Amino acid sequence: MRDSEAFFQSRLEQIRAEGRYRTFADLKRRVGAYPRAYDHSLQSEVTVWCSNDYLGMGQHPAVRAAMHEAIDCAGAGAGGTRNISGTSHYHVLLEREIADLHGKDAALLFSSGYIANDATLSTLGALLPGCVIFSDAHNHASMIQGIRHSGAEKYIFRHNDAEDLARKLAAVGARRPKIVCFESVYSMDGDIAPVADLCDVAERYGAMTYLDEVHAVGLYGHRGGGIAEREGLSHRVTIIQGTLAKAFGVVGGYITASASLVDFVRSFSPGFIFTSALPPAVAAGALASVRHLKKDSSLRVLHQERVAALKRELVKSELPMIASPSHIVPVFVGNPLTCKAISDELLRCYGVYVQAINYPTVPRGTERLRLAPTPLHSDPDILWLVNAMQGIWDRLKLVPAAEHSYRCQRRQITPERPSASRGSIA
Amino acid sequence: MRDSEAFFQSRLEQIRAEGRYRTFADLKRRVGAYPRAYDHSLQSEVTVWCSNDYLGMGQHPAVRAAMHEAIDCAGAGAGGTRNISGTSHYHVLLEREIADLHGKDAALLFSSGYIANDATLSTLGALLPGCVIFSDAHNHASMIQGIRHSGAEKYIFRHNDAEDLARKLAAVGARRPKIVCFESVYSMDGDIAPVADLCDVAERYGAMTYLDEVHAVGLYGHRGGGIAEREGLSHRVTIIQGTLAKAFGVVGGYITASASLVDFVRSFSPGFIFTSALPPAVAAGALASVRHLKKDSSLRVLHQERVAALKRELVKSELPMIASPSHIVPVFVGNPLTCKAISDELLRCYGVYVQAINYPTVPRGTERLRLAPTPLHSDPDILWLVNAMQGIWDRLKLVPAAEHSYRCQRRQITPERPSASRGSIA
Repeated sequence: MRDSEAFFQSRLEQIRAEGRYRTFADLKRRVGAYPRAYDHSLQSEVTVWCSNDYLGMGQHPAVRAAMHEAIDCAGAGAGGTRNISGTSHYHVLLEREIADLHGKDAALLFSSGYIANDATLSTLGALLPGCVIFSDAHNHASMIQGIRHSGAEKYIFRHNDAEDLARKLAAVGARRPKIVCFESVYSMDGDIAPVADLCDVAERYGAMTYLDEVHAVGLYGHRGGGIAEREGLSHRVTIIQGTLAKAFGVVGGYITASASLVDFVRSFSPGFIFTSALPPAVAAGALASVRHLKKDSSLRVLHQERVAALKRELVKSELPMIASPSHIVPVFVGNPLTCKAISDELLRCYGVYVQAINYPTVPRGTERLRLAPTPLHSDPDILWLVNAMQGIWDRLKLVPAAEHSYRCQRRQITPERPSASRGSIA
Repeated sequence: MRDSEAFFQSRLEQIRAEGRYRTFADLKRRVGAYPRAYDHSLQSEVTVWCSNDYLGMGQHPAVRAAMHEAIDCAGAGAGGTRNISGTSHYHVLLEREIADLHGKDAALLFSSGYIANDATLSTLGALLPGCVIFSDAHNHASMIQGIRHSGAEKYIFRHNDAEDLARKLAAVGARRPKIVCFESVYSMDGDIAPVADLCDVAERYGAMTYLDEVHAVGLYGHRGGGIAEREGLSHRVTIIQGTLAKAFGVVGGYITASASLVDFVRSFSPGFIFTSALPPAVAAGALASVRHLKKDSSLRVLHQERVAALKRELVKSELPMIASPSHIVPVFVGNPLTCKAISDELLRCYGVYVQAINYPTVPRGTERLRLAPTPLHSDPDILWLVNAMQGIWDRLKLVPAAEHSYRCQRRQITPERPSASRGSIA
């Protein structure tokens, strides 16, 4: 046992030396003041630039009111698994609302998006006889875990590459069940999948499609149904997976698909069966959020406008922004110690909170700052941030934009990319 | 794809035929009226007898007030993973409070108890070089998943059998890191582990201990620290795992252990790293609940008194109660169709909600009703329940207590018991 303690300490020392030991910012967000929050370590107010509460729905009056009402009516927790007294009427209504949002028969809630991916993919991959899974090379750790846990045969296709997918599908027996797994908006680069092309190929080979829209639901599409809705493709995707923790501002994950597929996962997945239901107030808050964003696009429009404003200023500044067609705005650093140093200086000297994104969240050598503008970041907020970064970049004599973009291009044609999760438990 | 749909439907048909297709009761719990709830399918009020909100903390004024305050102050969701803006001051305080509850250095929160087990065991088992895991034969699905996902060598020891554990430990190389995993209170039988004996054996062989106290925290021990606290053993257990979703009445799971072990899991576990933090209001509610139950034992005392009262009535009634030294009161049925029929009749004719517990939650042939009395179940509630069950047992001519207890004894000496999770994805 003493040996184990020494082992833990030595591994922690190692990540400290690599500059990727994680210190969590101890924050208190402030309703009405978002994106400001109080930092308990600094003992002062900061502006948050890295939250996945992309639209500020976490402080929306309708969401808070629904949560208050549910707490007063139904109490704090659900009191059980979904099967053993833990299903509240809020869960039932929320699942109906999600299914409707994506134009599907049914939906199923999970504790988190991570669990939705892990539980669904591990169950389908394990139980569908002879199942083969095709996974995009940039898929999130939770999908990689689910696929690995399924024990199914798997093939990794080049990121966003429908032709590579087609080649890999063609090599597998026509009668075997197949699932093609990918994301719509990739969290750390902000790039968007060619959903139509991937669906074309999947359909050609009779494969199911599994689309993770966690960074897109609430944000894209006329009703916030994600990239698949925006591109009129929801009906062609077999399973859409989403989260209630990002644009919807609460917590929890889900899948939505045909009635039998959802019922099958509901009935056979240990990660769904053996865990407590989300609190009624969480379901109520998420329900209010989904309903609001379904009928009102104003936050979505303003969000895209703020994203464009930030990108404009970054381009002007010649900071090494990684170009993206989405709301995710990464700025390339490429070294974990520098990345952490910039993040620390932004926080301490400028009151700007942007978490350094290091391995295993991104591949080594691609460390970055990942900016997430919201409708509530003002023009002065943007200028303050960009000026602060420019000052730090100048002082530290960091790579200018031109050299960076050459590096990024090289990186994109590199065929292999170590997966976050594989690396982290390697 | 059409084949897959047909496959899902046929598997669902199969569990329907076996009487274990799960229909979730669509409930709205009512603050102030617990254990009553409104059943949306029945359209009437029912008395809940199967909730894991064992003490009714889900409706406690201090818990609800803390959640309201946090929602108004910090909003609905956390807005990110713990590392990327998702740590609120409530999380920090709650982790400190949990560590203190168990007399440990540090604690770590997870989305659920299921994830706490899966993430911690899979990480330790995968990363500790040469790790061997020893798992009690009755361990919960979430521990079984974590152990399997770790890929570590594993041995299953006979349920609650310290001698069998000793034999299995002795057979493995002395220098290899070892983890002995067990629960304190077993969820479906209500029996309690010989924690001291298992710690003795583990210490003799230099093994770490991992104790799942999800059905004990809040309920046992002077401050609600669980069976380990009650028996003065907390300092001898390496890792205590608990939940905030049962006696504490909210949601979420945790581990508590030495500072380096907790920091190691925090730093290396994908199931912790890559998922959104619990909402601030959940952390705040759980904090209030833990604090309340730490200083006030009155609900614990009343809970045990109500448990004793129910057991007395069941013994008088000669219903086939499975004897247990804990608050969990199972009544044996032994057939999934009968179990479901009894549960349905209790609900429809008597307004009593007790979920039928069928495979995969319990082994086939041991289907049961699992009663969970709370401090809020009155004497008339108990009499109504027992009379209702007696009426149904008489009418259906079910196995009387004497024959049942013979069967149960036989069952207990059966060495093998299929695990819930293995079965469910077999």
